[in-house]
Amino acid sequence: MNRRIVLARRPVGMPRPEDFAVSEAELPEPGDGQVLLRHSWLGLAPAARLRMGEEASYTRPMAIGDVVYGQAVGTVLKSRHPELREGDMVVTISGGWQEHSVAGGSGLSRIDLSIAPAAAWLGALGTSGMTAYVGLLDHGRPRPGDTVLVSAASGAVGCMVGQLARLKGCRAIGIAGGPVKCELARDLYGFDACVDYRAPDFAEQLVAACPDGVDILFENVGGAGRDAAWALLNQRARVVVCGLISEYNGEHASGPSWFPILFKRLSLSGFILSDHLDRRPEFVREMGAWYAAGQVRMKEDVRHGLAQVVPSFIDMLGGANVGKTLISL
Amino acid sequence: MNRRIVLARRPVGMPRPEDFAVSEAELPEPGDGQVLLRHSWLGLAPAARLRMGEEASYTRPMAIGDVVYGQAVGTVLKSRHPELREGDMVVTISGGWQEHSVAGGSGLSRIDLSIAPAAAWLGALGTSGMTAYVGLLDHGRPRPGDTVLVSAASGAVGCMVGQLARLKGCRAIGIAGGPVKCELARDLYGFDACVDYRAPDFAEQLVAACPDGVDILFENVGGAGRDAAWALLNQRARVVVCGLISEYNGEHASGPSWFPILFKRLSLSGFILSDHLDRRPEFVREMGAWYAAGQVRMKEDVRHGLAQVVPSFIDMLGGANVGKTLISL
Repeated sequence: MNRRIVLARRPVGMPRPEDFAVSEAELPEPGDGQVLLRHSWLGLAPAARLRMGEEASYTRPMAIGDVVYGQAVGTVLKSRHPELREGDMVVTISGGWQEHSVAGGSGLSRIDLSIAPAAAWLGALGTSGMTAYVGLLDHGRPRPGDTVLVSAASGAVGCMVGQLARLKGCRAIGIAGGPVKCELARDLYGFDACVDYRAPDFAEQLVAACPDGVDILFENVGGAGRDAAWALLNQRARVVVCGLISEYNGEHASGPSWFPILFKRLSLSGFILSDHLDRRPEFVREMGAWYAAGQVRMKEDVRHGLAQVVPSFIDMLGGANVGKTLISL
Repeated sequence: MNRRIVLARRPVGMPRPEDFAVSEAELPEPGDGQVLLRHSWLGLAPAARLRMGEEASYTRPMAIGDVVYGQAVGTVLKSRHPELREGDMVVTISGGWQEHSVAGGSGLSRIDLSIAPAAAWLGALGTSGMTAYVGLLDHGRPRPGDTVLVSAASGAVGCMVGQLARLKGCRAIGIAGGPVKCELARDLYGFDACVDYRAPDFAEQLVAACPDGVDILFENVGGAGRDAAWALLNQRARVVVCGLISEYNGEHASGPSWFPILFKRLSLSGFILSDHLDRRPEFVREMGAWYAAGQVRMKEDVRHGLAQVVPSFIDMLGGANVGKTLISL
């Protein structure tokens, strides 16, 4: 049997435990080109919240009763895939919050434990790392000397953006919530500075941390932090809209004035990783080498068992986690 | 002597004739690498309004007493430029509202009357045409079958965007003010449809004209037309922010919600032609061929004499002109 966490009702605002239910189902059968997996790790990400509302976002909304969307690392139990065999370790972009899944297509990849341990394939070498990689390199187009400002700087995507920015010769400035996360961003991830958005003089601190303005704003959060950052954008700055986690639970804030988009010649781009899976081989090659050399790292927040998924997810949306939230099964 | 139109005071809202003054000055002397020109044509463009306010826009604001910014075609009277001789015909991006100017650098180019008459080098083959070319091709990235929505569709930039979109195999939909301009967009410029933003059922007409949504929004105007277009953007649509003429005289409207930027993976880019002058040789080659073959055209609104500059500029900002506003001197 397969234990799964399904959407019981649509959350209003911050999700509550009662919005989810555990359900059991027969093990699914892999179709042609697919594998059946037993999950050993689940990776939680805020984007799952987006799919729980009634509003269409990246995709159609989840239906009530659907397994919640998420990444997983697992072992192949049965294969009808031409290149994968029983016992192979893989990562799947859409394994879901469950013990088993059927997977195939471009979101399924073998992992190499000689490069990094299994859990890292959900973090630095997984969707979090690759989101940072594609977002910063392809959309942000960093040049040496640029100032890169990153919100949720100690989070799974943000910490990778900061480390990549430093590797590319940029100045990395973070925004995070509270002194613990700011210290982590500076000390573990090497941000040049990290500003606490809860500080009463946040806006002034941000100005002081960005004396040359901001060339790339890598936005994971939205809200007041983003609005303060907006004022600091230089001519020809790039705004990478990767996430708006502060808006996932509720009303959507109105946007920036159009006027600076024009006269500062800004470029803004929203993106979603699943549009860029063709970049994975290059990502794994480059990031794998940096990871193996100790040039990138990611703190993990590991919890154990399917019962921890929902409380961990709620913690993550509330900012109570530190690092990449992983569930070991 | 050189007669010039200078900024007498900063306009509040729509400029008034008293905001400008005619002044005379000695003919300037060209420096090294420069030429002295006698202007035969001035090209008026809304962007000049941007430089008249106190607020920095693309550049620092004009000072009171400065000659107003604008393009000009003229004849070389004196040359200290390595490649230009007395009698050569040239176009200059910053000739200004005056009878003579000193010009040099990348904004100065010889024109070829065998390709097109002098005035066309301020229109289809000038900054208007090149703005459309760089904006649509480089920022809009059109693909055959795309729907391209263009505001100020009968204007100097908009009409070129529509014609280029058609040449690239796209569906071109215009927005313009009043039936005369809409008819011009369809009949002279080949737009597939053009919607009058003054019509009471404008939003419904726009939806009907874009049954497959909008892949590229080429924004020249801002305001209510832009907001109606925003709702029609497809996944991965590109928004080229070329102008916001409806906001040049007054308050700046707030921007789009950030949320669709993220989940529709939109890209928005503001641009200014002067950042892209390196594209001119390719532009002249391609656009010159289309012009010579009759595949692109531009209606001209020609007025005579320096005294007509200010009233023509005010007409243009108010939408009372039809086609590219040119002053013959």
